[in-house]
Amino acid sequence: MKVAFLGLGTMGLPMAVNLVKAGHAVRGWNRSPAPRTKLAELGAQSAATPREAAADADVVISMLADDAATRAAVIDTGTLAALKPGTIHVNMATVSVALAAELAALHEEQGIGYVAAPVLGRVNVAEAGELNILAAGAAATVAAVQPLFDVLGQKTWYLGERPEQANAAKLAVNFMIGSAIGTMGEAVALAQGHGVDKADFLELVTSTAFAAPVYKGYGKAIAEERFEPAGFKLALGLKDIRLALAAAEQVNVPLPLASALRDAHIESLAHDEGHLDWAALSRTAARRAGQA
Amino acid sequence: MKVAFLGLGTMGLPMAVNLVKAGHAVRGWNRSPAPRTKLAELGAQSAATPREAAADADVVISMLADDAATRAAVIDTGTLAALKPGTIHVNMATVSVALAAELAALHEEQGIGYVAAPVLGRVNVAEAGELNILAAGAAATVAAVQPLFDVLGQKTWYLGERPEQANAAKLAVNFMIGSAIGTMGEAVALAQGHGVDKADFLELVTSTAFAAPVYKGYGKAIAEERFEPAGFKLALGLKDIRLALAAAEQVNVPLPLASALRDAHIESLAHDEGHLDWAALSRTAARRAGQA
Amino acid sequence: MKVAFLGLGTMGLPMAVNLVKAGHAVRGWNRSPAPRTKLAELGAQSAATPREAAADADVVISMLADDAATRAAVIDTGTLAALKPGTIHVNMATVSVALAAELAALHEEQGIGYVAAPVLGRVNVAEAGELNILAAGAAATVAAVQPLFDVLGQKTWYLGERPEQANAAKLAVNFMIGSAIGTMGEAVALAQGHGVDKADFLELVTSTAFAAPVYKGYGKAIAEERFEPAGFKLALGLKDIRLALAAAEQVNVPLPLASALRDAHIESLAHDEGHLDWAALSRTAARRAGQA
Amino acid sequence: MKVAFLGLGTMGLPMAVNLVKAGHAVRGWNRSPAPRTKLAELGAQSAATPREAAADADVVISMLADDAATRAAVIDTGTLAALKPGTIHVNMATVSVALAAELAALHEEQGIGYVAAPVLGRVNVAEAGELNILAAGAAATVAAVQPLFDVLGQKTWYLGERPEQANAAKLAVNFMIGSAIGTMGEAVALAQGHGVDKADFLELVTSTAFAAPVYKGYGKAIAEERFEPAGFKLALGLKDIRLALAAAEQVNVPLPLASALRDAHIESLAHDEGHLDWAALSRTAARRAGQA
Repeated sequence: MKVAFLGLGTMGLPMAVNLVKAGHAVRGWNRSPAPRTKLAELGAQSAATPREAAADADVVISMLADDAATRAAVIDTGTLAALKPGTIHVNMATVSVALAAELAALHEEQGIGYVAAPVLGRVNVAEAGELNILAAGAAATVAAVQPLFDVLGQKTWYLGERPEQANAAKLAVNFMIGSAIGTMGEAVALAQGHGVDKADFLELVTSTAFAAPVYKGYGKAIAEERFEPAGFKLALGLKDIRLALAAAEQVNVPLPLASALRDAHIESLAHDEGHLDWAALSRTAARRAGQA
Repeated sequence: MKVAFLGLGTMGLPMAVNLVKAGHAVRGWNRSPAPRTKLAELGAQSAATPREAAADADVVISMLADDAATRAAVIDTGTLAALKPGTIHVNMATVSVALAAELAALHEEQGIGYVAAPVLGRVNVAEAGELNILAAGAAATVAAVQPLFDVLGQKTWYLGERPEQANAAKLAVNFMIGSAIGTMGEAVALAQGHGVDKADFLELVTSTAFAAPVYKGYGKAIAEERFEPAGFKLALGLKDIRLALAAAEQVNVPLPLASALRDAHIESLAHDEGHLDWAALSRTAARRAGQA
Repeated sequence: MKVAFLGLGTMGLPMAVNLVKAGHAVRGWNRSPAPRTKLAELGAQSAATPREAAADADVVISMLADDAATRAAVIDTGTLAALKPGTIHVNMATVSVALAAELAALHEEQGIGYVAAPVLGRVNVAEAGELNILAAGAAATVAAVQPLFDVLGQKTWYLGERPEQANAAKLAVNFMIGSAIGTMGEAVALAQGHGVDKADFLELVTSTAFAAPVYKGYGKAIAEERFEPAGFKLALGLKDIRLALAAAEQVNVPLPLASALRDAHIESLAHDEGHLDWAALSRTAARRAGQA
Repeated sequence: MKVAFLGLGTMGLPMAVNLVKAGHAVRGWNRSPAPRTKLAELGAQSAATPREAAADADVVISMLADDAATRAAVIDTGTLAALKPGTIHVNMATVSVALAAELAALHEEQGIGYVAAPVLGRVNVAEAGELNILAAGAAATVAAVQPLFDVLGQKTWYLGERPEQANAAKLAVNFMIGSAIGTMGEAVALAQGHGVDKADFLELVTSTAFAAPVYKGYGKAIAEERFEPAGFKLALGLKDIRLALAAAEQVNVPLPLASALRDAHIESLAHDEGHLDWAALSRTAARRAGQA
């Protein structure tokens, strides 16, 4: 397929690379030019604007930083308006439910297919083509891009006909990750308050009842107090918790645990920790207890 | 070793059985007589009172329901006062940090060793002798009972010289379990609010980032809305969250997530759900959202 | 002074009337025409568009429902763009801190003075010209419109050079009102849980330590379970709590009480109570306790 | 009437003095002797033990620091056991609902009347005989001691037949006070985050919608950052919030705002602020925001 790939960041570049390697005709665009060059060296085309990248594409994949970047690249540049009927736009970024619904409507007006397909997995998982893909949109449209998903991920989870359903699910997952980190922070503060070694406690829980990737990964960082370089910045964690709360409020769902987590993240930012890894959220629990 | 086993409930009985099978001379006591008979059929002795069970024992293991039951059996009956110096009492129940500290002091006064050794694992794990044992107390005393732990569990995690440290760690773990359930409840409410199927969502998260026993087990119960029979009652979950909060307050550690969870549990009780499985905590999130 | 008055709703109309009565040349605009007619009957001029109302005005006062209505009337209609240099725009509505800052910048670019002046007080207070006015903006600009404030209110509280400071203060006050209502709701649930009569309890507290207008007013409604007609709708209370949280997040201030209140409001909306008076927030505490 | 007065602390002494001045035959006891001497100088008798004080009394009033002090003086010393049938015990201290119920049962067994009558008002109010008295117990028993209440207070609020109802109400009031302080703390943090002067903001709110004693008193302390000497210690505030939460949990009433306040108080203690005035709770909001 002719694929336009918008957004060649930490996640987007390895994804686009995998598509190139799988034999797809990829035309890549990125705001800063360096990753375009990298991708081009592997045989992809490079485009100076999103609109140029998307011209004649069968499928446009976007993997941009946030709502604003997505809106800027897809709408403000006229890219969407220039797409030919029948094109499919697959938005794999973690954006708000509100933007997903807005984009779905805009695409429908123009006869363009719109699939929301945010992913689970960090860079190394993206490189291995082992992402978990949360997809929503018209079933036939999702089916049409399944060959691309098969290159990018190990499994596609189909979550509903309305694209924003995938975004709601993705935000719910990210809230769960934030909750796991925040909970470890509080549990560690309790254990430490009684003189139990932090690393011992975390090894115990992440080897037993909580032997899951999220706990193991963030637990290790908390145990070692290793918050730089950030795998995923705390400030981005706050952004996702905020989007989860907004998505929930839209359908009148109160989320008290998410609210408490939001407060903790803001407190982290007030103490200049937004640039640290999400695991640094644990510092807030320690600081409140006078342990830090 | 001559082992007195006080408390032959759902967890205590299979543990005592394993000790009998391993060749230890076990004398069991339980408030209601039925499990004493069961244990006796396997070759153990049966005692009519905790004090009788403990007479001449090298090691007294107690596995009683809560602080009150422990206090009743160990102190009020004169059992502790009758122990001969050199005996070791291993308390494997989930009790409060305050009681653990009080018992540690009382035992020390009498020259009796005291080890706190609460466990992780449900009945089937106890039956298999695969518990995770969280142990604290004087290192030599813990070492002396390690042969018993080797029968009962797959691993002993040593957490400190003061027995209450093991209880603090155990309560921190149970708080984490409560938080995992409460978080799944909120995440599911968010997903459902947008029409995402609850079972689909939970399969997704518990197969990927949250592929850990706690999430898989409780996630399945939530997905199937199967809350009876209770594996572990919601009301007992509240008890443990409350003990975690008390343990934390004692050392000036605020736990906002635990506080929010405590509120949710109380709300469950106000809606007559305390007898249901802990997974039923998820109903509170749904009810708040008008989904239930 | 020649005053344009945009927004003749429940609050705006009596305020505009007072200005007419005080001898100012008022030209009023409202989206729906009825209140324009009413005002005209008292000797004011009526305008079909905000822009027409504002033409040649010395001072433009806006008192619109929310950010969207303000943005629509002031910016989208070209009203602001058409103002002559030297005009002063006094925005007396409760809008977001973000919009206040944005409007302040836009006005400055055009050489138009911008004063934020949200008010405390309900309709009857507005009618009596006894509002408390929270004003912020350049001191000289505020001084220039002080004669109008003297007509509308009993006191002007000057809160800073940057207009958004008045909005931040106003939102902080509204958060305090929401907290007072939410706190009464919980206190009443506790008292009722022990069989103490709700009305007795509320009379006690609002006659003694909490003998303040907010407690007396909302306390009476709670005691009588009289939530219709709404003096101020619960859904608007949620809007203001949300704006307070946003204003706080902007400067990294966590507000855990406001977060808990936001959750309670959303729960009210999930139970179709958004159209009731703000006092109906108390129902959520009762419902959580199984009392309602 | 012959009145035994147990507990001549900051509140108890002026109350006992008023009874003496009103012509009642008062016999006072206090753990430390100094206030006994002071009271004796005004014509009262002094007793070396609670039991001696209570001998032959018509009414025993206790005003002790907390549950433990009450239990020690009333039960452990044998005072209650020695009372003659027909005596009335009026407990005016802020104790737990659980202790009130326990004492009510113990007194009933012995044919002693038991009235719970905690008070609202600080020392100066006690001195002026202007307390608000929250009374509960058998109506006839309360009526019998009303002449004493008329000396001590400006008004008696009768709250129910079961003594613990007055304690539930009193704890609900103290939770409301804690919430008012905590809310001012957060509101001030929000205002300050936008550069609004703390004192200006607090003067504004406590002169208008929140012109009530609690807000004025604590608001002034917050504005002036004057937390010593403590009028009422933050640590005692935590004790009352904790008792309110326990009273609520007993009847399955969740109190999320009280929970959030409990966390804030514990955080204060973790930062060595428990000895400061309750108003110092506001520091926690500032510290979380990085303002302190």
